[in-house]
Amino acid sequence: MSAHGVAILGSTGSIGCNTLRVIESLGPDRFRVVALGAGRNVEKLAQQVARHQPELVSLDTEESGSKLQAELLKLNLPLPRLVFGEAGLVEVARHSRADCIVSATVGAIGFVPTLRALEAGKRVALANKETLVMAGELMTRAAENAGAELLPIDSEHNAIHQCLRGEKRSEVRKIILTASGGPFRTRDKAAMSSATVAEAMQHPTWSMGAKITIDSATLMNKGLEVIEGHWLFSFDADAIAIVVHPESVVHSMIELIDGSIIAQMGVTDMRHAIQYALTYPERCPTQLPPLNLAQLSSLHFEAPDLERFPCISLAYRALRTGGTLPAAMNAANEEAVQAFIQERILFSDIAKVIESVMDGHRTSGVKDLATVLTADRQARASAKAAISELTREARVNVA
Amino acid sequence: MSAHGVAILGSTGSIGCNTLRVIESLGPDRFRVVALGAGRNVEKLAQQVARHQPELVSLDTEESGSKLQAELLKLNLPLPRLVFGEAGLVEVARHSRADCIVSATVGAIGFVPTLRALEAGKRVALANKETLVMAGELMTRAAENAGAELLPIDSEHNAIHQCLRGEKRSEVRKIILTASGGPFRTRDKAAMSSATVAEAMQHPTWSMGAKITIDSATLMNKGLEVIEGHWLFSFDADAIAIVVHPESVVHSMIELIDGSIIAQMGVTDMRHAIQYALTYPERCPTQLPPLNLAQLSSLHFEAPDLERFPCISLAYRALRTGGTLPAAMNAANEEAVQAFIQERILFSDIAKVIESVMDGHRTSGVKDLATVLTADRQARASAKAAISELTREARVNVA
Repeated sequence: MSAHGVAILGSTGSIGCNTLRVIESLGPDRFRVVALGAGRNVEKLAQQVARHQPELVSLDTEESGSKLQAELLKLNLPLPRLVFGEAGLVEVARHSRADCIVSATVGAIGFVPTLRALEAGKRVALANKETLVMAGELMTRAAENAGAELLPIDSEHNAIHQCLRGEKRSEVRKIILTASGGPFRTRDKAAMSSATVAEAMQHPTWSMGAKITIDSATLMNKGLEVIEGHWLFSFDADAIAIVVHPESVVHSMIELIDGSIIAQMGVTDMRHAIQYALTYPERCPTQLPPLNLAQLSSLHFEAPDLERFPCISLAYRALRTGGTLPAAMNAANEEAVQAFIQERILFSDIAKVIESVMDGHRTSGVKDLATVLTADRQARASAKAAISELTREARVNVA
Repeated sequence: MSAHGVAILGSTGSIGCNTLRVIESLGPDRFRVVALGAGRNVEKLAQQVARHQPELVSLDTEESGSKLQAELLKLNLPLPRLVFGEAGLVEVARHSRADCIVSATVGAIGFVPTLRALEAGKRVALANKETLVMAGELMTRAAENAGAELLPIDSEHNAIHQCLRGEKRSEVRKIILTASGGPFRTRDKAAMSSATVAEAMQHPTWSMGAKITIDSATLMNKGLEVIEGHWLFSFDADAIAIVVHPESVVHSMIELIDGSIIAQMGVTDMRHAIQYALTYPERCPTQLPPLNLAQLSSLHFEAPDLERFPCISLAYRALRTGGTLPAAMNAANEEAVQAFIQERILFSDIAKVIESVMDGHRTSGVKDLATVLTADRQARASAKAAISELTREARVNVA
């Protein structure tokens, strides 16, 4: 058996780097990196190219491309073919020698390339949850039509995928997503309004990128996962539950019709889920230390507080309404999180911006790519307006 | 589809009664009770016969049979055919209209009937773990030869059966049995010696019969389950772990070669496992309340204390040595537990009796039924001698 070709969208991010570590640990007989897609982190990308020698590399702009070229020349290395922007990521996603695409860009940028990979019948190992939130219907339809496999890398959905392996879909009552609860799990509502970016970035159990870490603080991350879970596993909103589990040892669960619960547990290291998605249906040994249950102090579970974390209810509302509303919600969230990171709005404003965009959004059915992209664009504009309004109000209040 | 016939060995015990409740809750279209085997609890048996009208009933003696006859005459009910003793249980186990045998007698009495059921190609839902401990090799060989299914009712093995559903055997690194730790989990070694029968009978999470409750206090129950797990799932001693989990919410787990852990959880009600074993591979709804994770305070895990619970190491030793040693160990344990319940020996003497019997046992291979029964008989004689010795010593010490 020759090595499977892998292409990575978002190779310099947290999931991308871990994917490369997994591929290295599994050895060259199993996987070969054929294409990498990144943004502007040229330094890290140069190291990855030097080590894995992909045939194709995508960057955000030609300017970043020139920098990469310079870096590789310094190292006296051959140049891969360079492509740019979204079109470049699409080339990476459709690379003829890539059997599996790891979709790990942050936010909506991964949307079109991931869809193209599915249309091309590639296995997609999906870490970019926005993709399914924006256009789950298009994605799953494309996968079905092309016979493409969609394997989740998100630890929660990866856990559910594992739990579902031996079960009949009709015998599963619901899926139960665990949530760490984020850094504000025990903080009171008043104090949450004034939370700083630094505080929101202190995730208790997982080390991740900025956007997803803020999403974990608002619990919108869990809301996005509810929608993602719907598309990956065909469960209705009522059959998707959230339970807060601060230790993040139980990665998620399913409940069967006979009341039995099957849970997947492990250490909090994304490499487990990445390897699972790459090698499925086979499982392979890892060099990672296994979970030592006897060394755990204790595991806790509690219901999520929907009042302090309004993003959860917003996500359920988007899923129940369907159509373009989840895409609008996702776009508004991206804009609001960015504004919060830039210290233009308060932590508690994130949910307010999203809600106001959702209230103003005219939901339509998702006919095609254009519908989704239009909803995304409109929602971003509305979100920006709402953010400006909040910023202006804040200035007035300060004055 | 006509209803499946069920025969129960040990119908008046805890598992037997719960089996009848499960059968009732699933309705008459699914299961019909064709035969019941009990001991001398005539009053309860009469109620069961009145309600389920089996064709065949086994009791310990003709005397108990006469009492049952009298009870049923009072109720003006037709008499089922009555049979007695081990031969009677064998008839129950081989009943021509029984598709599934629930083997739920306590101790070694269920051994031969269960073997006969497997030889007859029946599905055996096994709660009687001594059966596999005594003669796992004979049992599993008989099941294989006759194409009989062996489904565990023990909550731990039932959990492992559920966890293994979607996995390849070669990709499972080990099975992890959870243990509540019993009533003496936190008691110090000195105080354990003087533990009373009443104290040992206070199981923290499960309501069960006397023998298994004492086995849970010594953790020999877990030791027996290690051996049972070996035969049910073909794992070596090194690939069977025990973790103490006082809440008994996680019923057991498996660890895959990639480090992932799959756990089965549920409320502590044997009806779940019984129903699973009866309806497998189908899962059916239950009227039992599901596990409410958010209402759990917390779950704890710790390593078992091998010093305070020497029965665990004795069981591992028996499994590693193999042959007739597990049967000898099991017989010695039954005698020692009985002597403890009769207040003839101390709690800490149970392990001493077993160890002395094992030390004196000449292990041979398990060729046939006779080998096992001889080992059982010899070990009981040695155990009785050891118990008398301890009793005499105690009298001397008191005097």
